[in-house]
Amino acid sequence: MNQIDDTSSYLDQVERPTLILDVNRSKNNLARMKAKADKNQVFFRPHFKTHQSASVGRWFREGGVSAIAVSSVDMALYFARHGWNDITLAFPVNPRQLAAINSLAAAIKLNLLVESLEMVEFLNQNLTSPVEAWIKIDVGYGRTGIPWNQADQVKAVARAMVDSPIKLSGLLTHTGHTYQAKSVTEVQTITSEAISRLSGLKSSLIEAGLGPILISVGDTPGCSLVDDFSGVDELRPGVFIFYDLMQLALGACAETDIAVAVACPVVAKHPERDIIIIYGGAVHLSKDYIIAPDGTKCFGRIARPQADGWGPLLPDAQVISVSQEHGLVRVPAEIMKQETWSWSFRCTPAYARISSGAI
Amino acid sequence: MNQIDDTSSYLDQVERPTLILDVNRSKNNLARMKAKADKNQVFFRPHFKTHQSASVGRWFREGGVSAIAVSSVDMALYFARHGWNDITLAFPVNPRQLAAINSLAAAIKLNLLVESLEMVEFLNQNLTSPVEAWIKIDVGYGRTGIPWNQADQVKAVARAMVDSPIKLSGLLTHTGHTYQAKSVTEVQTITSEAISRLSGLKSSLIEAGLGPILISVGDTPGCSLVDDFSGVDELRPGVFIFYDLMQLALGACAETDIAVAVACPVVAKHPERDIIIIYGGAVHLSKDYIIAPDGTKCFGRIARPQADGWGPLLPDAQVISVSQEHGLVRVPAEIMKQETWSWSFRCTPAYARISSGAI
Repeated sequence: MNQIDDTSSYLDQVERPTLILDVNRSKNNLARMKAKADKNQVFFRPHFKTHQSASVGRWFREGGVSAIAVSSVDMALYFARHGWNDITLAFPVNPRQLAAINSLAAAIKLNLLVESLEMVEFLNQNLTSPVEAWIKIDVGYGRTGIPWNQADQVKAVARAMVDSPIKLSGLLTHTGHTYQAKSVTEVQTITSEAISRLSGLKSSLIEAGLGPILISVGDTPGCSLVDDFSGVDELRPGVFIFYDLMQLALGACAETDIAVAVACPVVAKHPERDIIIIYGGAVHLSKDYIIAPDGTKCFGRIARPQADGWGPLLPDAQVISVSQEHGLVRVPAEIMKQETWSWSFRCTPAYARISSGAI
Repeated sequence: MNQIDDTSSYLDQVERPTLILDVNRSKNNLARMKAKADKNQVFFRPHFKTHQSASVGRWFREGGVSAIAVSSVDMALYFARHGWNDITLAFPVNPRQLAAINSLAAAIKLNLLVESLEMVEFLNQNLTSPVEAWIKIDVGYGRTGIPWNQADQVKAVARAMVDSPIKLSGLLTHTGHTYQAKSVTEVQTITSEAISRLSGLKSSLIEAGLGPILISVGDTPGCSLVDDFSGVDELRPGVFIFYDLMQLALGACAETDIAVAVACPVVAKHPERDIIIIYGGAVHLSKDYIIAPDGTKCFGRIARPQADGWGPLLPDAQVISVSQEHGLVRVPAEIMKQETWSWSFRCTPAYARISSGAI
């Protein structure tokens, strides 16, 4: 029973599953995405649901970001308290939180998403301060929003905002189906198709005298893999600040862009079946997984600790299952013998995991 | 846009995804399991990792429970602070938390799990107060523990505890593979096989002069579906306090035993595809799912709110996918038309989910 890492590291002090953030990688990811938005002359409104942290938010402010997206009223209230005064609530309006929405609308530039006449009428009747709003369009993801081919419905919603406390900003979509893409080309095709569908709707609205209309897109795979955002006015990626194994599998980032991991103590070893048990289960790593090249579920990958972070992903070592507190890590026999297995990367959507050996 | 529930309910006040607990159902579940343990003259040591709440813990104390299991050192510290003084740390020993383990061992009756000679030696060298320990046996689940057919290894670990600060309690297993069972009979078979395998090991240990040896088992499916626990000394179920849709699918509980749910506001409707969107996603409901009878993933089911809880599960209505904050609920057309869809049940491992309509 001894410390197996010859690299002295703060990770040797980790007692329980602990999120580790590589600040330099994260700031590099931010600078790169901001530069891409600037080059395209597109407004950059990063999604803060990924980190949900005022401290991380400060890096964005230092990087020249002034406006953000969030996915709940509570997140909007939190970031408004931390000085953010241009916030898009990128989630369907929740009428149960009308009082908080009104207090936000009075205090900051609040931008809502609407997708039905009912909701516009509800807001027209109940808002006590003006807001801006985007019409949420479903360009093919199939989660929520008005389907992109229902132009009449979109026009009806836009028309209901005329002479109302709701100022129409334009059309917004989330192309979440890029996460199911099988190739970089497919991500690019989904993105250009989305832009084309929104542009078509924009033309109909302008023809109907309902302009001007801006266009907002922004999932991390698309924003990472597309270079030309002609026709787009705003980008809203979130996960790019940390990236993860799913983004790596999609080709949306390099391994060295992954900026978060979870350090997990090793608590048992089963050399006869090349399994180690980490203190790090579903409550620490979630039950998100990617499908590994061999067809198995991969809940995370493994890297060795280094003095200032973690090293490259070990080939063929992965978290193969998680229960509440346990993670099962399959480790190649030769690495098992070396007993230098130490870290495990989290795969999706936004975190990476690390286990740091102790036995 | 109006309240659609004609039943006046505190759920009409719910603003965000909110855990709802049916105290009567939960206390009934507790009384039933305690009675089964008493009838079998088996020591009842419920697992508190399911609720992790000192308040819920009080119901157990009122119900005559004096000893518990937990799955982390931090949970042990929490419940020790709340007056529990006989705690089994039902997780491999984490050497990184040695200091906390020693402070617990000094303050309460602490029972550990060991599964290797290395760990016994580590504890022999480092413990500053006596503890009791169970040898963790893998009877077929394949997560962790010494395989049940490695009697020599078990004996070596038991022998290393002789004349040490670690007093051997006996053999403990978690038959987590009951969760994959296809029938009630299979759960019962797994349980009786586990008891038989542990009993065989117990005999070897006693023959080797390493007794007395107790036997501890206790997953919720097994504890719910087996009536005769002859040969067993201790039961450690956890999920039974709330039950859930997975336990219902296994036949381990009745629908009316499910004691927790999540109330989620409805935020969008798509009648053209029989989908409603709830404010309630993976961060509220987790990504756990069961496979529905039609082969699709079911992340939860739906029930209507009632004045004092929730009604029966609606047939064919289920949460078919979750993203970070969104849940997609498929609702039969006739229910969609009635617009009285309102709640959604959580399926596994321990919570139920409810969505309460607002649009």
